[in-house]
Amino acid sequence: MSTDQHHLQRAVTLAQANVAQGGRPFGAVLTYNGEVLVEAVNEIHLTQDPTAHAELLAIRAASRQLGTRLEGCVIYASGQPCPMCLSAMYLCGVERVVFAASNAMAEPFGLSTAAIGQQVSLPLDEQRLPIQHLPNAAMITLYQHWKTLHDPE
Amino acid sequence: MSTDQHHLQRAVTLAQANVAQGGRPFGAVLTYNGEVLVEAVNEIHLTQDPTAHAELLAIRAASRQLGTRLEGCVIYASGQPCPMCLSAMYLCGVERVVFAASNAMAEPFGLSTAAIGQQVSLPLDEQRLPIQHLPNAAMITLYQHWKTLHDPE
Repeated sequence: MSTDQHHLQRAVTLAQANVAQGGRPFGAVLTYNGEVLVEAVNEIHLTQDPTAHAELLAIRAASRQLGTRLEGCVIYASGQPCPMCLSAMYLCGVERVVFAASNAMAEPFGLSTAAIGQQVSLPLDEQRLPIQHLPNAAMITLYQHWKTLHDPE
Repeated sequence: MSTDQHHLQRAVTLAQANVAQGGRPFGAVLTYNGEVLVEAVNEIHLTQDPTAHAELLAIRAASRQLGTRLEGCVIYASGQPCPMCLSAMYLCGVERVVFAASNAMAEPFGLSTAAIGQQVSLPLDEQRLPIQHLPNAAMITLYQHWKTLHDPE
């Protein structure tokens, strides 16, 4: 069994254990420089927090140890990361992600997030969620001020 | 000033206050049935959590009061929601989102998240982040088991 398969199998085992505890079938393992740093499961059943996906919780736990940037980290997820978790991976700079169950495998059980991926890929005015832009010139001034404070060049 | 403009102006004011406190220029207001339920700011400077965006924190705080589903909620954000936060809005079912500063307005200051939106819209094998699918048949069994437990039909 390869190292990737080993860590991914652990994510699957975590997902199985989470279902046994009344949770959703999702687990994740996060490694840093090849060593396991964090294990996480979907905790929506415990916290009612809709963002408590295994991958997002793994990123948050890792950031408490490593800081905001997670270079050198790989995430092993039992399921295909949803667009929220995938975007979070881009935000924090993880190196790579490996997953076991695709959206296609999850679809018959109502567990695919492909529909959300399709929505967020559309132009704002074509999405199902009403998204309204009310421009406010004060924000330009604020962004300029922030940039002056943090990038004095 | 319309109600939307009033709540959005408050999100802008929160963003301004956050910069004065050393934080990033982002704030959000979440209303439930028209009343303000939560105010939030970007807290990355306080927690080093890369997911601590104002909108995500607003959703998490609202879920502690309302549960996992946030129907009847509107989010007012000082900046255009990033793909992580936008996906979270789909996951929890907020009704609507209104924002003040677009990615185009944010781009000159390095604050646009449009590039992440472009990445997550691509097929997995064309994205910048290496994303590998190692199928695992145990996940199908687990999904079936989960569905049996939670949807006995």
